[in-house]
Amino acid sequence: MIRDGALAIRDGRIAWVGRRADLPGTPDRLAAAVVEGGGHWMTPGLIDCHTHILFGGERVREFELRLEGATYEEIARAGGGIVSTVAATRAASEDDLVAGAVRRLRPFLAEGVTTVEVKSGYGLDLATELKMLRAARRLGDALPVSVSTSFLGAHAVPPEFKGRQGDYVDLLCREMLPAVAQSGLADAVDGFCEGIAFTPDEMARIFETATRLGLSVKLHAEQLSDLGGAALAARFGALSADHLECLGEDGVAAMAAAGTVAVLLPGANYFLGESRRPPVAALRQAGVPMALASNCNPGSAPVLSLLLMLSMGCTLFRLTPEEALAGVTRAAAQALGLADRGRLASGLRADLALWDIESPAALAYWIGGNPCAGIIRGGVPVAPGMAPGSP
Amino acid sequence: MIRDGALAIRDGRIAWVGRRADLPGTPDRLAAAVVEGGGHWMTPGLIDCHTHILFGGERVREFELRLEGATYEEIARAGGGIVSTVAATRAASEDDLVAGAVRRLRPFLAEGVTTVEVKSGYGLDLATELKMLRAARRLGDALPVSVSTSFLGAHAVPPEFKGRQGDYVDLLCREMLPAVAQSGLADAVDGFCEGIAFTPDEMARIFETATRLGLSVKLHAEQLSDLGGAALAARFGALSADHLECLGEDGVAAMAAAGTVAVLLPGANYFLGESRRPPVAALRQAGVPMALASNCNPGSAPVLSLLLMLSMGCTLFRLTPEEALAGVTRAAAQALGLADRGRLASGLRADLALWDIESPAALAYWIGGNPCAGIIRGGVPVAPGMAPGSP
Ligand SMILES: [Zn+2]
Ligand SMILES: [Zn+2]
Repeated sequence: MIRDGALAIRDGRIAWVGRRADLPGTPDRLAAAVVEGGGHWMTPGLIDCHTHILFGGERVREFELRLEGATYEEIARAGGGIVSTVAATRAASEDDLVAGAVRRLRPFLAEGVTTVEVKSGYGLDLATELKMLRAARRLGDALPVSVSTSFLGAHAVPPEFKGRQGDYVDLLCREMLPAVAQSGLADAVDGFCEGIAFTPDEMARIFETATRLGLSVKLHAEQLSDLGGAALAARFGALSADHLECLGEDGVAAMAAAGTVAVLLPGANYFLGESRRPPVAALRQAGVPMALASNCNPGSAPVLSLLLMLSMGCTLFRLTPEEALAGVTRAAAQALGLADRGRLASGLRADLALWDIESPAALAYWIGGNPCAGIIRGGVPVAPGMAPGSP
Repeated sequence: MIRDGALAIRDGRIAWVGRRADLPGTPDRLAAAVVEGGGHWMTPGLIDCHTHILFGGERVREFELRLEGATYEEIARAGGGIVSTVAATRAASEDDLVAGAVRRLRPFLAEGVTTVEVKSGYGLDLATELKMLRAARRLGDALPVSVSTSFLGAHAVPPEFKGRQGDYVDLLCREMLPAVAQSGLADAVDGFCEGIAFTPDEMARIFETATRLGLSVKLHAEQLSDLGGAALAARFGALSADHLECLGEDGVAAMAAAGTVAVLLPGANYFLGESRRPPVAALRQAGVPMALASNCNPGSAPVLSLLLMLSMGCTLFRLTPEEALAGVTRAAAQALGLADRGRLASGLRADLALWDIESPAALAYWIGGNPCAGIIRGGVPVAPGMAPGSP
């Protein structure tokens, strides 16, 4: 923490940061333009490193039916589950996908988010997966936000491959991954390793292929059971292993050794009413960086606020407020392999947020509300009221 | 639910509501001004029927210390607990109290809240309690919101009465309550019946006095233990009994018989990590109206969003989305004894909110974000961007 600080920007990058008293001159003699912080706290622009914010359709009715006591069959008959999102995403135009995600991204941007990860994974066929990745890239043109994309073909077995899971993994490795790599549309390859999704052996095949194609990997692991997914991810030098409610000691050690970031997703934990919580104390002890993300998705985490994840990270997962803030800045940048942001340091991108709060812990303390008082992206102030951008 | 509906307003009240097709003429021939709903859903303006939004000081540091593993003594030494809020509220000027509450109210108003209850209870001496109640009334002038006030002198035993709880109850009954009644500043009398606060016998004395003075009563009851507070409240015809995590069958039956509203406060349940949940199924079965409120306060529920309470009401307490919406409209109005709002019906105040959502259940489904697309208060549209008002 720097009190009474100053930060200088040149060519969209942080040129200097420190105490105002240590500035080598007065601001108006040093700078072409001076932005007064107004006594607000400044942090790096926030980074949401795990979202499925791009999708077709709605799942509100499923939520309502569940709370009204409908059976699983009744919900399935009413068109619930990931299958419904896959069908709606396949049917949606690329423009519609962009428009829906833009609408959902606005509240994040208003809260100081300047970088967001966006996954595919509701297409499960090459054409739709590429449509999703193209739409994800377009979000970065439509809104003042940097987009990092992940190809999540291994999200679920598509309906047309029911009972032929191996064939789908073949398709992923032989056709889809090479085509995605070729397209340049994916910054990383993600997967879902779970009893209801892909086995560790299948994920290993997928990661081998991805690695050979020069793509970074990450994994949804240990959400519902401990299959050793985090250790598998670590073995491939994964950027992150995400969820981790059921992570054991071996997984923690493997992640620590590999430098794999733990991405914690309290929104899904809350929404699904899970009683298991990720082993935060063990991760902290082992020095594994912990990121926090919204996991915005229509089925298990209809989350539209990253600040709320700071609250839930602390209140549900017992992170400290300082860890929570690092979780959406420094650790989140690391989880995306982005060395040029997430901290206030010379040479990094000048993606900054200003906050009308008494201390940084207030970001995790308040439940709702938005104290964001200003956003600077790539050195350029995002005009007040313009924060959510205009497509 | 009315699809393709219309609503007519005359003199700030709802004059007609129904299907547009049933309107006795075309809108532009019937009305001086026509507001197009733009295909949005319309609900009554939201009502937050339980807040402690008016207070001095901050408790962020206490939250941080707790998560950093500080002991109870360390937190107390750092000035934690309700005692610190009482000291800061006593020290604050009335203007400062208004300014702080205005800042915290803005996000609620932006979410379509048009009526809010505000409690005193951080003064615990007559002068400060009256200062809080005056400040609460002023909120209704500073912002486009109706304020209902509750005198909560029986919130805690003030430090100067430590070990002399009976003397404080004497003071409440002999001096404070009569003075508060005389002032006309309180719309109801509230109390906290709990092992760490006031006994049922003490609350009965306070309620007898309040009733004799012509004031309605309500009670914080059965939050941490079952002392029979809800049944006591019901015996006095209380407007509401609030919290209720530990409410038993007798309490449910007594509330049902008396028409006492159950005010559920999931924000505190979440923030305190309580495992007990109010008996929603039993309350539903008995026909007790269930309201949802923010309980906004610095110690146990730093909540700045009523919409989030719809999410938590459903996700943590298993209300249906329909019950959650009734909980911040119809039932919340009943909890405040306000028969003139909370529903879309002829003769009621035209306090209305418009929502950019696909179905009403979406208000409880999304976690964060604000789909409020317009607010009408007393028949007058609150200009976009002006929703949070200007003091
Ligand atoms: Zn995910
Ligand atoms: Zn309360």
